[in-house]
Amino acid sequence: MADMKLPSRSEDYNEWYNQLVLRAEMADYAPVRGCMIVRPYGWALWENITATLDRRFKATGHLNAAFPLLIPKSFIEKESSHVAGFSPELAVVTIGGGEKLEEPLVIRPTSETIIGHAYAKWIQSYRDLPVLINQWNSVVRWELRTKLFLRTLEFFWQEGHTAHATLEEAEFETRQMLDIYTDFAMNEAAVPVIPGRKSASERFAGADQTYSIEAMMGDGKALQAGTSHNLGQNFAKAFEIRYLDKGGVLQHCWTTSWGLSTRFIGAIIMVHGDDQGLVLPPKLAPYQIVIVPIFKNDEEKSQTIEAARKLKTDMIAGGFRAIVDEREGQSPGFKFNDWEMRGVPLRIELGPKDLAKQSVMLARRDKPGREGKAPAALAGLAETVGKLLGDIQASLYMKALAFRDAHTADAKTYDDLKGAVETGFAFSYWCGSAECEAKIKEETKATMRCIPLDQQAGDGVCVHCGKPAKEKGIFGRAY
Amino acid sequence: MADMKLPSRSEDYNEWYNQLVLRAEMADYAPVRGCMIVRPYGWALWENITATLDRRFKATGHLNAAFPLLIPKSFIEKESSHVAGFSPELAVVTIGGGEKLEEPLVIRPTSETIIGHAYAKWIQSYRDLPVLINQWNSVVRWELRTKLFLRTLEFFWQEGHTAHATLEEAEFETRQMLDIYTDFAMNEAAVPVIPGRKSASERFAGADQTYSIEAMMGDGKALQAGTSHNLGQNFAKAFEIRYLDKGGVLQHCWTTSWGLSTRFIGAIIMVHGDDQGLVLPPKLAPYQIVIVPIFKNDEEKSQTIEAARKLKTDMIAGGFRAIVDEREGQSPGFKFNDWEMRGVPLRIELGPKDLAKQSVMLARRDKPGREGKAPAALAGLAETVGKLLGDIQASLYMKALAFRDAHTADAKTYDDLKGAVETGFAFSYWCGSAECEAKIKEETKATMRCIPLDQQAGDGVCVHCGKPAKEKGIFGRAY
Repeated sequence: MADMKLPSRSEDYNEWYNQLVLRAEMADYAPVRGCMIVRPYGWALWENITATLDRRFKATGHLNAAFPLLIPKSFIEKESSHVAGFSPELAVVTIGGGEKLEEPLVIRPTSETIIGHAYAKWIQSYRDLPVLINQWNSVVRWELRTKLFLRTLEFFWQEGHTAHATLEEAEFETRQMLDIYTDFAMNEAAVPVIPGRKSASERFAGADQTYSIEAMMGDGKALQAGTSHNLGQNFAKAFEIRYLDKGGVLQHCWTTSWGLSTRFIGAIIMVHGDDQGLVLPPKLAPYQIVIVPIFKNDEEKSQTIEAARKLKTDMIAGGFRAIVDEREGQSPGFKFNDWEMRGVPLRIELGPKDLAKQSVMLARRDKPGREGKAPAALAGLAETVGKLLGDIQASLYMKALAFRDAHTADAKTYDDLKGAVETGFAFSYWCGSAECEAKIKEETKATMRCIPLDQQAGDGVCVHCGKPAKEKGIFGRAY
Repeated sequence: MADMKLPSRSEDYNEWYNQLVLRAEMADYAPVRGCMIVRPYGWALWENITATLDRRFKATGHLNAAFPLLIPKSFIEKESSHVAGFSPELAVVTIGGGEKLEEPLVIRPTSETIIGHAYAKWIQSYRDLPVLINQWNSVVRWELRTKLFLRTLEFFWQEGHTAHATLEEAEFETRQMLDIYTDFAMNEAAVPVIPGRKSASERFAGADQTYSIEAMMGDGKALQAGTSHNLGQNFAKAFEIRYLDKGGVLQHCWTTSWGLSTRFIGAIIMVHGDDQGLVLPPKLAPYQIVIVPIFKNDEEKSQTIEAARKLKTDMIAGGFRAIVDEREGQSPGFKFNDWEMRGVPLRIELGPKDLAKQSVMLARRDKPGREGKAPAALAGLAETVGKLLGDIQASLYMKALAFRDAHTADAKTYDDLKGAVETGFAFSYWCGSAECEAKIKEETKATMRCIPLDQQAGDGVCVHCGKPAKEKGIFGRAY
C-alpha cells in the first residue's frame, strides 16, 4: 500500500488520518461496527506507553489488579449521575450458557461501581487506607460516531481507582495523577498539553471535580488526552465504602479515578504526523532506528546485509530499538518511503561505499529531504545516534508547542473567539455560567476544553456576556 | 485474617485452597457468579509470569496485538467442531446502546474466529507468512462449577495465533510453544510438568492436534497448565485464510493457537503450598524478601526501621524485590506468620542485637522452623541472599519432582491403575481407542492427561483391554 499516496493534511485531514492508520498498520476495522483491531505496530507503541506510565504509577505507590469485565446492571444504577451518563452507552449480556440471565450484566464502560463494591468489603479501618489500585484493560461504550483510536466501541486504557480518608488526600491524588499524565505527554510523547479543570457540564458522570490534559491536533482541534476525577464521597455513599477512623467513628471514604487510553495514540499521530505519514517520538517509537542495506549485486548484498545485521546488534546492545529491512524485491526508495510513512525516527542507510569509508548515512524522519541527512562514522555510532534521537525528541516537542502557540489566541472579544476557534484555541475570560458555555458551544461549535491550572490571576470580563470573570478558559472545537 | 488457622491440606485440601487464596489476598469472589477479582498480590504474581513468558514469545519472533472482545455470533458457527465445543459456554450481548442488536454478539471465549477473519484479509502472499501474533487479554466461558484461578467465567491469559505456509512449519510452531511453556513451568515456576499429546477426545474444539503440559497438584490430581494446538487447515478453510505460493497458486494456510492462563497461579499454589500457606518460587514471587524490624521501645524502633529501610534499598539495588513490614501495632510473630502465609521466599529479621553484630537473621520459607534459619553478615548480604534464593528455587523444583515421582506408578494392570489414580498418576500402556479411554474415565474418574512426548519406545498391552499398545499415557483425576 506504500505505493499509493496519502491525501495531504490540508486537502483532507480526516482522510489523511484514516488512511494513515490503516496503511501504517497501526489498526484495522473489526467485523463488529465501531470496534478496532490494534495491529502489532500500533500495539508496540501502546506497550511503550503502558510501560512508561506503569513505572510512574508504581513509583507513586500504586499496585495493579484486575476486576471483572461483567458488572450487574443494577450496580450502574446505584450512583445517580453515573447511571445518567452511562446507561445509553451500555452493551448488555442477557444470555449466558444458553440460558436467559435473571439479572442482565453489562460489559464495564468503566469500573467505579464494581470496584466500589469490592472496596466496601476490603476497607474496614483507617489502617487500610489509602487503597491505590490501577488496572490495564479494555472497556465498552456504545458510541455511534466512531474513529480508529479516537472513539471506538471497545477501547484500551488504564483506570486507576483510589480510596482515601480525607478530601484533601483525594484531591492530592487527583492532581498528582494529572501531573503524571502531563509529564508523560510532554516528556515521553513530546505532546504539549494544557492541564486544567473541567467545567461542570464536562465533568465525568459521578465526579465532584474532573481534571484533564488537552492537546492541540494538527488541524487546530482539541483532544482530551487523559482525565483525573475527584469523586468526592459520591461512590463511597452509593457503595457504602466506609472506614473506622482513629476515634472509632465510621466515616465514608473519598475516592478518585483516572484514566488514559489508546486515544492517546490518535494524539501522537495527529500532533506529529506530516504529509508523508507518521512521525513517532523516539522515546515511544516501536522501532527507533531502521537500517536499510543498499546493494546492486549479490556480492554487495551479502556484504551490506551482514554489516547491517551487525550494526543492528550493536544498536540493540546500545539500548536502542532497531531493525534491518531485509525485504526481498523492494527497492531502497520503496523502503525509505515505507518507513517514513511508519514514522521511524531515524534511518540508517548502509551501502558498499559507506562501508569502505567505515561510515553510514543517517536520515532524520522529522527533517525530510537533504536537510535531515548526514554521514556518520561507524566508530562511536551509538553515541551519535543517542544524541540525535534526543535532538529529535526535543525538536518534535518544540515544533508542536510552536504550532499550538501560533494557533492559540488570547481572545478578548466574542468575535476574536469565533475567529480563533476556526483554526485553534481561544484563551478567554469566562464568567463561569453554564449558559454562556452552552451558547458559545451552540454558536461556534467550540467547547470549554478546560480552565488551565496555570494562568495569571486577575480579573476580566466574560468573552460572551461581558460580566465580571476571574478565570480564563480554553475554548476549542474538539474530537 | 492471619490470626485464624488454615485447615490443613490433609484435613480438607479443597478448603485449604479456597481459604488460602482469599486470606493471602490473591483473589476474591466478584459479585457476578463465577467471576473473580485478582487482587494486587495475585496480579503482581501474574505480571511476573507474563513478563517472563512475553520475553520468550518475543525472542521467538512473536508480536503482540489486540483483537476485539466482541465477536459476531455467526463467526463461532463457521467451524463445525468449534461451534460444538463453545456454543454451550457463550455469554451473549443482545442489547447495545439501548437497542436490540440485529445480530447478537458473543464475548470471546477464545479468538480463533475473529483472528481468522483478520488473517484472511491481511495475508495475500507467501511473503506475508508466517504471521506470529500473541495477545494478553481475558476471555469468558460460561462455566457451571467454578473455583478461583482454576476455573472462572472470565479468566486472564495469553492466546497466540499463527499462520504458516506448510503443515511442517505449523507443527514446528506448535511444538516450539509447548517447549516454551515447559521451560517456563520448570525454570521459572519450579513446577515439574509432563509435556505430551492429547487424545482425540481431549483435543481443543477445532484442532487437529493438541499438546499440553500436565502438572501434579499437592493432592495428586492433575492440572492442565498450558496448551498448544495445531489447527491444521480447519480455521483456514472456515475463514478463507489463503496465500499465493511462489508458483502463483492459491493455498490455504496452516494455523496454530496456544495459551497459558491465570490457572497457572492455581498450579503454583497447589504444587508448592504447605499447611502454613503459600510458598512462592523466588523467580516469580511479588516480593522475594520481607524485612521485619524487631524492637521493644521507641529508640530501638527508630534504629531498626531506619536500618531496615536502608537494607531494602540495598536489596532493591541488588536486583531483588523487597519490602519492609512497618505495620503499626502488630507483633513480629504476627508478621512472621502473615508473610509465611503469603509465601514470601525469604524473611530478614533485624533487631538491635543483630545490628550491634552487623548481622541479620535469615529465614527460608521453604524450610519452616529452626532448620531454615541462619544468621548472615550485613557485609556481602546481597550475594548471600542471591545464592539462597537460587537454592530455594532449585529446592522447590526438586521437592515437587520427588512428590510427583512418589505419586506416579508405572501401572501395568488395570488394578494397578485404579490404585494409582487414587493418589496420583498412572503411566500405562493404552491401545489408543476412545472406548478404553471412556471406560477408564467412567470406572476410575481418571482421564487420559496426555501421551508424554518423552517415553521409552516399545510395545506393551493396553492397561484396560489387553490389546497391543505402542504408547503409554498418563492417567489421572484432574482439576
